[in-house]
This record gives sequence, structure tokens and C-alpha cells, in this order.
Amino acid sequence: MDSFDKVFRGTAFSSKSPKEVNIFKDYLFCLDAEGKIQRSVSPQEKVYQEILDAYTGESNFFVLEEGQYFLPGFIDLHIHAPQWAQAGLAMAIPLEDWLDAYTFPLEAKFSDLSFAREIYEDLVATLLANGTTTALYFATVHKEASYLLAQICAEKGQRGLVGKVVMDHTEECPAYYRDKDTQKALDDTEAFILSVQELNKITKQGVYPVITPRFIPSCTEEALAGLGKLAEKYDAYIQSHCSESDWEHAFVKERLHKHDAFALNDFGLLRDKAVMAHCTFLADEDVALFAETGTAIAHCPISNVFFSNGILPLARFKAKGVDIGLGTDISGGFSPSLLDNVKQAVISSRMLEEGVDATLPAEERGVPDSRITINEAFYFATAGGGESLSLPIGRIEEGYCWDVQVIDIKTPGSKLRLFGRNVNLEEVLQKILYLSTPENIRAVWVQGEKVHARPR
Amino acid sequence: MDSFDKVFRGTAFSSKSPKEVNIFKDYLFCLDAEGKIQRSVSPQEKVYQEILDAYTGESNFFVLEEGQYFLPGFIDLHIHAPQWAQAGLAMAIPLEDWLDAYTFPLEAKFSDLSFAREIYEDLVATLLANGTTTALYFATVHKEASYLLAQICAEKGQRGLVGKVVMDHTEECPAYYRDKDTQKALDDTEAFILSVQELNKITKQGVYPVITPRFIPSCTEEALAGLGKLAEKYDAYIQSHCSESDWEHAFVKERLHKHDAFALNDFGLLRDKAVMAHCTFLADEDVALFAETGTAIAHCPISNVFFSNGILPLARFKAKGVDIGLGTDISGGFSPSLLDNVKQAVISSRMLEEGVDATLPAEERGVPDSRITINEAFYFATAGGGESLSLPIGRIEEGYCWDVQVIDIKTPGSKLRLFGRNVNLEEVLQKILYLSTPENIRAVWVQGEKVHARPR
Ligand SMILES: [Zn+2]
Ligand SMILES: [Zn+2]
Repeated sequence: MDSFDKVFRGTAFSSKSPKEVNIFKDYLFCLDAEGKIQRSVSPQEKVYQEILDAYTGESNFFVLEEGQYFLPGFIDLHIHAPQWAQAGLAMAIPLEDWLDAYTFPLEAKFSDLSFAREIYEDLVATLLANGTTTALYFATVHKEASYLLAQICAEKGQRGLVGKVVMDHTEECPAYYRDKDTQKALDDTEAFILSVQELNKITKQGVYPVITPRFIPSCTEEALAGLGKLAEKYDAYIQSHCSESDWEHAFVKERLHKHDAFALNDFGLLRDKAVMAHCTFLADEDVALFAETGTAIAHCPISNVFFSNGILPLARFKAKGVDIGLGTDISGGFSPSLLDNVKQAVISSRMLEEGVDATLPAEERGVPDSRITINEAFYFATAGGGESLSLPIGRIEEGYCWDVQVIDIKTPGSKLRLFGRNVNLEEVLQKILYLSTPENIRAVWVQGEKVHARPR
Repeated sequence: MDSFDKVFRGTAFSSKSPKEVNIFKDYLFCLDAEGKIQRSVSPQEKVYQEILDAYTGESNFFVLEEGQYFLPGFIDLHIHAPQWAQAGLAMAIPLEDWLDAYTFPLEAKFSDLSFAREIYEDLVATLLANGTTTALYFATVHKEASYLLAQICAEKGQRGLVGKVVMDHTEECPAYYRDKDTQKALDDTEAFILSVQELNKITKQGVYPVITPRFIPSCTEEALAGLGKLAEKYDAYIQSHCSESDWEHAFVKERLHKHDAFALNDFGLLRDKAVMAHCTFLADEDVALFAETGTAIAHCPISNVFFSNGILPLARFKAKGVDIGLGTDISGGFSPSLLDNVKQAVISSRMLEEGVDATLPAEERGVPDSRITINEAFYFATAGGGESLSLPIGRIEEGYCWDVQVIDIKTPGSKLRLFGRNVNLEEVLQKILYLSTPENIRAVWVQGEKVHARPR
């Protein structure tokens, strides 16, 4: 029998495929020193009892209580960290006005590191408490404050992928909030990459720099091309917004005479480590380009309701072989909870299928075969996010990082009752996904380390 | 100065109109012995200091802490109490199958009063913890279990309006779950009305019997006509489902050659005290009939996503003068929280306006002028529900019942931070509506009595 760094005993849910969930009933999950699952052992295996005998009572042996379950931590593929300060506010305003009147003035304040620290610390703690173990962040144009966000992730134990935002187009970005010039935007990005790579060396769970052109409208073509070169030079992550709304999609078409996807690709910005937010207006050839380049979609179902003018055809795009995960898009979306976005992903898919206008005949109302199930939404929030980032996360399986949330359906104040029904674990998962609140998340682990706990 | 039964000091939010919210900053709310607000006093009034001097330190004087706010209790206009046992399950099934395979077998079990008690007690406690101070319930066909639900509401201090369900159509209802015959359905309904009216006499906050034909498909015409006569005889509340889905709407048209609304009206079932759930497929003349008869709509935005094949045109129907409130429709909707339905009402209205299919040109995609704001959704969940029931509830104003929830934005574990912004109370309300969790609800009062509290 191998020796393990930590051993956990309990029942876990983890996606097997987009549509199917594995239920590991009363398994042992044995970690190596790196915080990865070295062995996952079913009660039927002979070694199960041996491990139990060796570890029971030890300080590195953890047993779930009755009513507790392991779920993979959530992976938030798109979130604007500075906008946490305005989450839930100004939800009734069109995208262009929302940027100018609310968002840019707020983000500009992040030149002040103490202001940045207050908001970033609260955000990272809030996300962990909501079960988000990995997040792909937009920070601001400020190199220092962006690095501070990476540091806070490192300290609090969250796996953070952080981007210093590039927005250098003098006609499209306000003078008070943009990169000083194109060269400075590229220099700051490169310096940011190097500093976060250093930080990563001393961070168990990993922190990663992300090349982050805000979106095509706010960047010069020189900047976009330069960022593409940096992406290749450092094999770095890339994130941006792509074909988000009528306005944005049309703007790019008019300026560059092509869709966002082809424009981004021509700048070297569609790659396996690229994640593009929204993508509601991708055409079939754009989707094919995503699949070909390995570029992933960050689906932000709550935000899309307010800013995207339509619903992402999730089922259709997934069938074309694109990696897809979920994002909160704080503060285009109001909720820091990926679980709220899991539910909204199901709801939005149903609305796309059924249509909305009851005055139309049923057959003219919606788009057939658009619905996804709650199990698929769970997949997008976990395994799909991991695949999008090409990291061994989002599943509870051998070789994957121990990034988990412990859900307690017996939490006082937020009990999820089954009322004496035969306990069917698939139904337990449905109850958890549809009815749990942040109170049910009792503990959160990242890379084998406990990073959040609620006292009982 | 009058003498008061209780005096509360704090800041309250309450709808002034569908679009406007009153903010009563640091007011005194003075209750009479009945549990109604006798006086609402602003700090500018001379009597404010007199009342403070007289009541400060007394056991009937209550002061909110910093970060706490009064909101009206929520009014759930449509909820199937027995279905709480299956909330969050089987959300991916069409209405007809869902009834036969899941819902009717479950409801049939409520012939067992101890089973009924377990579920009803948990549900009423859960609703109170979610800020729901009044609920309009469908129970089951069983007279005794339905009465038990009214008793549990009475005991726990919730204002309950409870209906024994009528479903007597032998071809449409399963033999194991229906009224024995039409006469028995009517006799049981009348006996139920009388017993709940007795219970109401000794219940401070009120419990009311509700005439409850499940929906036209499950009832004979004799039963519907008989229920209409009982409604008139007792001036009783009425509830049913109306023009909910393609299937249901078409079924009634084929059977009775008219829309649900006209059919219900011909049976005497559209009245000022009638509340009809869903109503997604009402035609303009149906809506006019609702307005004329004073019949209200229970809008159930989460449930409608799964079972209604379209979105209620809320803004359009409201503009025609119909009373509208919100319902959870457990378990067609998965959430016991009316606040979740507040958010979904906004989201659904935006989707109706924007449309869903991004492959269509923008101008063909949605229905203009459909969106509502979060303040309007708040109105529907509170004041709109009160107007629908013709009861003095849903507002924090003189003459209204003291049905309130105390929201604490500084709750540890669920802080809603404002980050040093100038505290703008309208933004505080937006944060509460978009970002609070059940943990933020620290206390709930109904008719001047505390019915729920969370220890700090
Ligand atoms: Zn974004
Ligand atoms: Zn219903």
C-alpha cells in the first residue's frame, strides 16, 4: 500500500460526461503531497479496508458526516474582479452606457492599491465561500493592482488566473482609464506575465497570468497583434469578450470587416489556452474555428440576460466540439455564485427551446433541441471549466487536483429534506443543485488544502 | 399621544407604486393591538421624540441595528404545499407526464396525516425563514390534511389561505387520486370552508379557506358550477390554474369551445377574490375579463420556464389594470424563495423583450417594452400580492398589517458590502434584492408577532 498525504472518506458526485454523473458512494480519496488524487478507492476493493485501518484516527484522515457530500469545486471562467464593488447595481442599462457611466469610473479607482485590496480580498473570500475553487479574472489596466489580485488568490488558496486588462484605443477608451499607449500596454503585460510566473513558483495551487485584451473595440490592432505574439512567446492564457451583443458584434464587423472570432484568430489570440466570454453571436464558421483552435467559451447565462440580446445556443455549440464552461461575469451578472449560473443555464436553455412570445404559434416560438439538463449544467460548471483551461481540475478522479466543496444537506437553517423517500443519490444531487444555499457549503478545499470552513 | 402595542424603529422599504419605492428612513412604526400599523412617524415629526421618550427601553420597543432594514413580508400567491416533498426533482418532464408519474402519486399520500404533518410543518417553517408571511396554498383533495395545513399556518403564525383541491373528472384523474364523486367534492369543500372559517376566528393573523378546482381539465362542469355557487354563498377566495401551457390551453378550448377565462367566468369562478395561476396564454379579451371581474394573476416565473411554453407578458397585462402578484409554484418551480422569483421575473421580462434566438435579426427577436425593473418585481412580490388578495398586507404603511422581514446586510457569512460608497438607500435595496440569501433574513413578523428568528 502506498503512503498518502491525506485520505478522505465520503460520497462524491463528479461528471462522467456532459450528460452523465458518476456517483462514488462511500469512496476513499487518497492524496499525494502535491494535492492531487493519487488513488480513488471503492468499498469493493480489498485495499479499502487496509487504508481504513492505516489512516482511521490519524490527523490526515477526514470523514464526511451523514448528509455531507463532495462536489468538485466550481470553476468561474469569466469574472471582472473590480466590478464586485458594484455587483447588483445598475442592471437596467445598455452595455455601452453601463461601461461609461458605471464600470470605467469604478475600475479607474484601482490605481489605489488599498481600495483594490479591500475589494479583492472580500471577493476572493466570497467566491471560496460559494464553492469557486478556480477563477479566471479580468482585473484592471493597472499592473500593480492586477498583481495584487494574484497575490490575494495565492494567499487565500484559490487557483487564480488573472489578467491585466489591455485597453489602449484612444477613441474608444476614456482618457482617465486606459493604457497610456500601445507600447506601454504591451510592456506592462509582459512585466505582469513575468511577475505572476514568479509568484506561481511558490504557490501550491497555482496562479497564472492571462493576456487580456478587454475586447476588440477597446484595443488598437497593434496592441492585439502584440498580445498575440506575447501569447505565443509565453504559451500564456488568453481571455477576452467575443461576439457578445448586437452592438459589439456589429462594431467589430464594421471596423475589421469580419467576425470577432476570425479577427482574434488573425491576431494569434485563439489558442488552446484561450477562453472567450459570451460568444452569443458566433456563426457556424466561428464555432468551427473555436473547435479547431481549442478555444473555449465562457458561458455567462445571468449576464447574458442583461447585456447580450440573446441566448447562447449551448447545446448546439457543445455538439460541435467546443470546450465550454460557466462564468458569473460579475458585475454584468449580479451573482457571485456559480450555482446560480448553473440554474440559469438550464433556465436559459429551456427558454431558447420553448421561445418566449406566447402570441406566436408553438412551432414558431423557439429553437428545438436547445435544452440542457441540470446534470449538464453541473458539468459545465466543473469538468467543462477544467477542460476549457486544460488543467486537471473539475472532476473528482485520479490525477485531478483535490478541489472540492463539502455540501451538507443537514445544515441547520438550510436543510434539504428528502422526507423518508428511498434515498436515491441522483435525486440528492438534484436537490443540492436546485435548492442548496451558500450555507450548505461547509468546507472548501483547493489542491488538498482547506481554504474555507463554516463552523457548525 | 396614543398608546401603542409595539413600537419599531428603523429604515423601511415599501412600494409606493409598481415602479416607485418609498424609503422610510429611521421611522417609528407604531402598532395597535391587532398587529396593524396605527402610526408611521418620520423623524421630522414632533411626536417622534415623544414616542421615543415614552418607549425607549420598554419591552415592546424594538430598534434595528446598523445594517438592518425592514422589508414587507413576501406574499406567495401560488404554491402546492404537498409538492414541497419533491421540490427540485423531475424538472425535465412535460406537464402531463409530470402530473401522472410524480405529482399525483405524491399528493395521494396525503391521506396519511402524519406524512402530511411532516411535510407541511417543514414547508411553513421554510417559507417563513424565506420571508414569506402570506401564502395561497393548494393542498390536496383530502379535507382533513388540507385542514391540517391551515392549522399549521395558524400555529406557526403564517397567514395561510388554503384550498382543498377539487378534481372529480373520472377520465382525467387517476382512480387512486380524485374526489369520490362530484357531490362529495362539493360537500367536502363546503365542510372545509366552514371548519377553516371557525379556525380563523381564533387566529390573529388570519387563515382563509379557498375554493380550489385544480384546473378545468380535472373537473366536471357540475363541480365547477357548484364551486362557483359556493364562492358566492361564502364570499370565499378562489384559486385555479388558467391558460398555463399549450397543452392545457388547447385542451379547454377543445372541450368547452372557449378560453379558460370565459369558461371560469361562466362557472362564477372569476371574482375579486379569485387568483389564477400562470395565465401565460391569456388573450386580450381574457385579460379584459380579469380586469373587469377583479381576478388576479399569480405569476410564477420559475415554474413557467419548465411548464408554460412561454413568458407571461407581465408589463402588458399590468398596464391593462389586472392585479398581479408572484408565486413560487412549488414544485413546478423548484425554489421556496419568492426572492428567487423576484429575480426571475426581471430575467424573464428581459428575455421576452430581447428574444432568445440570436440567429434572427434584432428587430424580429423579442417583444418591445416587456422589461420590468427590480423595483417592479419587488412590488409584485409584496404590494401586488396584497392587492390581489384584497388584504391590507404587502406594504409598510398606516393601516397595513405588520408583516415584515428584517434584512441584515452585515450578517456574518452573507455580508452585502457597499465598499465605502456614499450609502444610497436605493442601491442598498438593489443589493438586497439581487444578492441577499436566506441568511440575511434575521427575523420575520406577521401581524405584529415574531414568527421566525435566526440567532446572530
Ligand atoms: Zn465580461
Ligand atoms: Zn400550480
